Amino acid sequence: MPQQLSEPPVALLRQVMAKKRIDAFIVPRADEHQGEYVPPSAQRLAWLTGFTGSAGMAVVMKDKAAIFVDGRYTLQVETEVDHGLFDTLHLIEHPPVRWLAETLPAGARLGYDPWLHTPDQVDGLRQACLTAGAVLVAVGRNLVDLVWKDRPAPPVTPVVPQPDAFAGQRTESKRGMIARELSGKQTDAVFLSAPDSIAWLLNIRGNDVDFSPLPLCFALAHCDASVDLFIDPRKISPETKTHLGPQVRLHPPQDLAAALGGLGGKKIRLDPAGAPSWALQRLTAARAQIERAADPCLLPRACKNTVELDGARNAHLRDGLALSRFLAWLSHAAPQGGVTELSATEKLESFRRDGNLYQGPSFATIAGAGPNGAIVHYRSTPETNRPLKRGQIFLIDSGGQYLDGTTDVTRTVAVGEAGAEERHRFTLVLKGHIAVAKARFPKGTSGAQIDSLARQPLWAEGLDYDHGTGHGVGSYLSVHEGPQRIAKNNNSQPLLPGMMLSDEPGYYKTGAYGIRIENLVVVQEDPRAGERPTLGFEVLTLAPIDLSLIDRSLLNDDEAGWLNAYHRRVRESLTPMMDPATAEWLEQSTRAI
Amino acid sequence: MPQQLSEPPVALLRQVMAKKRIDAFIVPRADEHQGEYVPPSAQRLAWLTGFTGSAGMAVVMKDKAAIFVDGRYTLQVETEVDHGLFDTLHLIEHPPVRWLAETLPAGARLGYDPWLHTPDQVDGLRQACLTAGAVLVAVGRNLVDLVWKDRPAPPVTPVVPQPDAFAGQRTESKRGMIARELSGKQTDAVFLSAPDSIAWLLNIRGNDVDFSPLPLCFALAHCDASVDLFIDPRKISPETKTHLGPQVRLHPPQDLAAALGGLGGKKIRLDPAGAPSWALQRLTAARAQIERAADPCLLPRACKNTVELDGARNAHLRDGLALSRFLAWLSHAAPQGGVTELSATEKLESFRRDGNLYQGPSFATIAGAGPNGAIVHYRSTPETNRPLKRGQIFLIDSGGQYLDGTTDVTRTVAVGEAGAEERHRFTLVLKGHIAVAKARFPKGTSGAQIDSLARQPLWAEGLDYDHGTGHGVGSYLSVHEGPQRIAKNNNSQPLLPGMMLSDEPGYYKTGAYGIRIENLVVVQEDPRAGERPTLGFEVLTLAPIDLSLIDRSLLNDDEAGWLNAYHRRVRESLTPMMDPATAEWLEQSTRAI
Repeated sequence: MPQQLSEPPVALLRQVMAKKRIDAFIVPRADEHQGEYVPPSAQRLAWLTGFTGSAGMAVVMKDKAAIFVDGRYTLQVETEVDHGLFDTLHLIEHPPVRWLAETLPAGARLGYDPWLHTPDQVDGLRQACLTAGAVLVAVGRNLVDLVWKDRPAPPVTPVVPQPDAFAGQRTESKRGMIARELSGKQTDAVFLSAPDSIAWLLNIRGNDVDFSPLPLCFALAHCDASVDLFIDPRKISPETKTHLGPQVRLHPPQDLAAALGGLGGKKIRLDPAGAPSWALQRLTAARAQIERAADPCLLPRACKNTVELDGARNAHLRDGLALSRFLAWLSHAAPQGGVTELSATEKLESFRRDGNLYQGPSFATIAGAGPNGAIVHYRSTPETNRPLKRGQIFLIDSGGQYLDGTTDVTRTVAVGEAGAEERHRFTLVLKGHIAVAKARFPKGTSGAQIDSLARQPLWAEGLDYDHGTGHGVGSYLSVHEGPQRIAKNNNSQPLLPGMMLSDEPGYYKTGAYGIRIENLVVVQEDPRAGERPTLGFEVLTLAPIDLSLIDRSLLNDDEAGWLNAYHRRVRESLTPMMDPATAEWLEQSTRAI
Repeated sequence: MPQQLSEPPVALLRQVMAKKRIDAFIVPRADEHQGEYVPPSAQRLAWLTGFTGSAGMAVVMKDKAAIFVDGRYTLQVETEVDHGLFDTLHLIEHPPVRWLAETLPAGARLGYDPWLHTPDQVDGLRQACLTAGAVLVAVGRNLVDLVWKDRPAPPVTPVVPQPDAFAGQRTESKRGMIARELSGKQTDAVFLSAPDSIAWLLNIRGNDVDFSPLPLCFALAHCDASVDLFIDPRKISPETKTHLGPQVRLHPPQDLAAALGGLGGKKIRLDPAGAPSWALQRLTAARAQIERAADPCLLPRACKNTVELDGARNAHLRDGLALSRFLAWLSHAAPQGGVTELSATEKLESFRRDGNLYQGPSFATIAGAGPNGAIVHYRSTPETNRPLKRGQIFLIDSGGQYLDGTTDVTRTVAVGEAGAEERHRFTLVLKGHIAVAKARFPKGTSGAQIDSLARQPLWAEGLDYDHGTGHGVGSYLSVHEGPQRIAKNNNSQPLLPGMMLSDEPGYYKTGAYGIRIENLVVVQEDPRAGERPTLGFEVLTLAPIDLSLIDRSLLNDDEAGWLNAYHRRVRESLTPMMDPATAEWLEQSTRAI
């Protein structure tokens, strides 16, 4: 008897689209909070298409469907998505709004879920519909949810206070700061939908998504420093309720619509690049005055206070110890054979677990041996898992969530002896890494302005890498955090004291190997004399950089001086915490060159 | 008998404002063409306020008035403008739209001349009025013109053909290129208001404004490669009419309104950052379909063809000879005393006049001795004219218009022996200059991405300069030309082969001295091997850089190698054209270090 075939999700979606007279429906990867990680209950794109990457979008029409992914995922989308059902397009080079403008027939009704798109994104959709002569329709309930039978329940994990000893500023003080910012613009309240902003503002942490300690929720922060928090009451323990205090009023999420509906006549700020369009539509219908402006928590959250910075330094001591113990183990174990990407990942995780305050990885470890190292966002699986082989190089990019800080570090090491080409490329990447780490720049400089410093040694040889040089990092929050970046995009956000960033240039040779050298750094005032106030970076990460991959003749004396001083600091910081064998390995691995 | 005081212009303007029920009126420095230079007939801002700088804006209200200028002009505005009549504000830090939003009373009528503002600018004014609850009113005739009694007549200068031997591409071919670009977007025509675009497209030149060989005019370029040119018929000789041919239809400027009015139902492109808002309003009223997009001449005009590049190289030979003869003369004359900024300027001009194809300066020479060198956009006058003194340094930034190319070059030289600080700063500036000149970068890189290469040596010492590193340059057209730039702004225009730019980092010590080293360069494919296609710069300018201002110990060998190779090229290129004494001076001035 032939097996009964169940209908593919896209067919189910088309049935409900026909019923609702929707000619095209958009399914983004994002959830209502526009964060990097979404809970299983919101993984609609994966349910519909099979695609599990961290960014993407699908559009389903009656007789065609398309999935849009970026350059990181062009290989992955091939294996995960049925290409009989979906055309694949490039998210950046041929974005959905352009495709819609070209593809929608005149008069077509384009449906979207206003919870899953920001006002800026909806502006783009509206423009596409204008061009095509189509009609944009906000659906009342997401069409995927109507046909997704075994959809998981939303996460309900406990919310815990983040102690002042780690947060460094009481929530009352933070709320007062935001209230002053709002009052200064005669704004009554700001609508917050980013869980990391709310977690920062209220000094709380949760566990609703992978890797980032976030409680999924919404909030209205008022100009009197009080907050309405919309969150599943099952997440809030009595202890957390006490921590939040009387100025934070708790509401179940379903009360949000009524709360926004009651803001008629008030001036409400909303981030057009982050909030759900639903909230804008709701506030507009209620005749609130809308202030389209950035989430006011972004900048104070990005500029870490001294307690957070001390926490970061402490977390990096423990993290550096774990990584150095791992590298010492690896230097002995790997050349003997039997170490794989997955076993190395587990070994490193076990060293991290030995450290205090460790909560888990801050993202899925990227451990790429040989050719797998060239896949920038590689994630090892039992099917792809490669052994570490002598003569190859191994890239491992990992990080930890500690109660006192978030880490993110990449080291690339030779297994046995590396070839001349790998050493040449590694040294070029290191020169770029050092150029950023040593950079001194005037106040007002953006990360975009210093991105090329990291690329110049590669550019000079006709080489480059296709990712940003650095991303912002949270304080026991998301490992990717805005608004600051070091990248060649048009981000004009100046770098400000206290901002944490990664410094991670790389080089990738498809089918052969990958190189990346990543430390976290923090922006600091530069104390040296000069005519202009200048800034620079303090390096937080403490772990040796593989000397066997460096061609000393390519470094100038300044660069070698930086490396030797860094290695001395690594050695002096970590040795007191080490057993003698590891200390001996570290001494050798951090010798001056 | 007391002298009869005539009423100040601002009082006259207020009278007509009252009559027309306009509560605030905007007077920009720009004319209808948004170019850098405006003819006397359009110098309304100067007439109204006395301010003669190249950028600025005034707003006049019944009981207050403000003038907005940028950082270059903060000193100049002090001396030129009556501060009893005008408050001075910073054009960038406190822009007019913000001031209007803060200052306009609710219900006020803000008047503007739609000929003098672009659609993007009018969007900003509209937003300001929305915020203030004011009403934006496009006036039918500029209120200044109604009361400006002795307003000069608009310029009427002959338009001449730019021969194919210099233009390198026939106008038929250029018009065909633009027509294909329009047809590809189903666009019927583009409205052109930038005289340099029209001059490029039709291979014509004029003389309606200072320094740039521009004919002031408007045009409609159609998708059938024909052009309607709106220009004073007195400017067009029979020869030029023949050159333009039958596909270019000539109309007097007053026919433009009717021509745009007849475009109902057509799709018309218009540059929202360059066209007069008047044209947009006229086309909208005529029910044309508007395509808001950049002037299609910008990119082909920016990417010089091989004939234009050969012309540029030839022009730079003659220009380099003139500048080198001048520098040789200066090295003898200045230390003896008696040379001033103005006499030096005239001397350099006389050497340029000796060269073939020379038409005049490409901008007002900046010649700053000692402390005057620190004024970035200084223009010497009999009142400010300083003698060149021993022990000081002298900055001279000048350029020529030649039929085969436009030049722009800055040299800073020591008069006698320079101090250690000046040599230190000069060498840092030179390091930045060389870093740009030597840069190799992947295709797709923007000027914004390489700007920091020029600044890094200064940044490392806590120093910087407050202007861009490089601007685009035309081919016997404007000395400042877009869309490419090397600057820290968010300009994402990739650098493309054939684009001409300046490379001109500097350092300025207020009240003491100024340093700038400027060559023109052209983007070229880099022929060296590599994994990615890369670009670099060919240096066009040929003139020695003062060795007596260089601290050799601060240059690395790569930098010294670049300088020596550059100087060898200068020497080998110019010596055959020189008299023996100048050749001897050049040999000494370009010796290897």
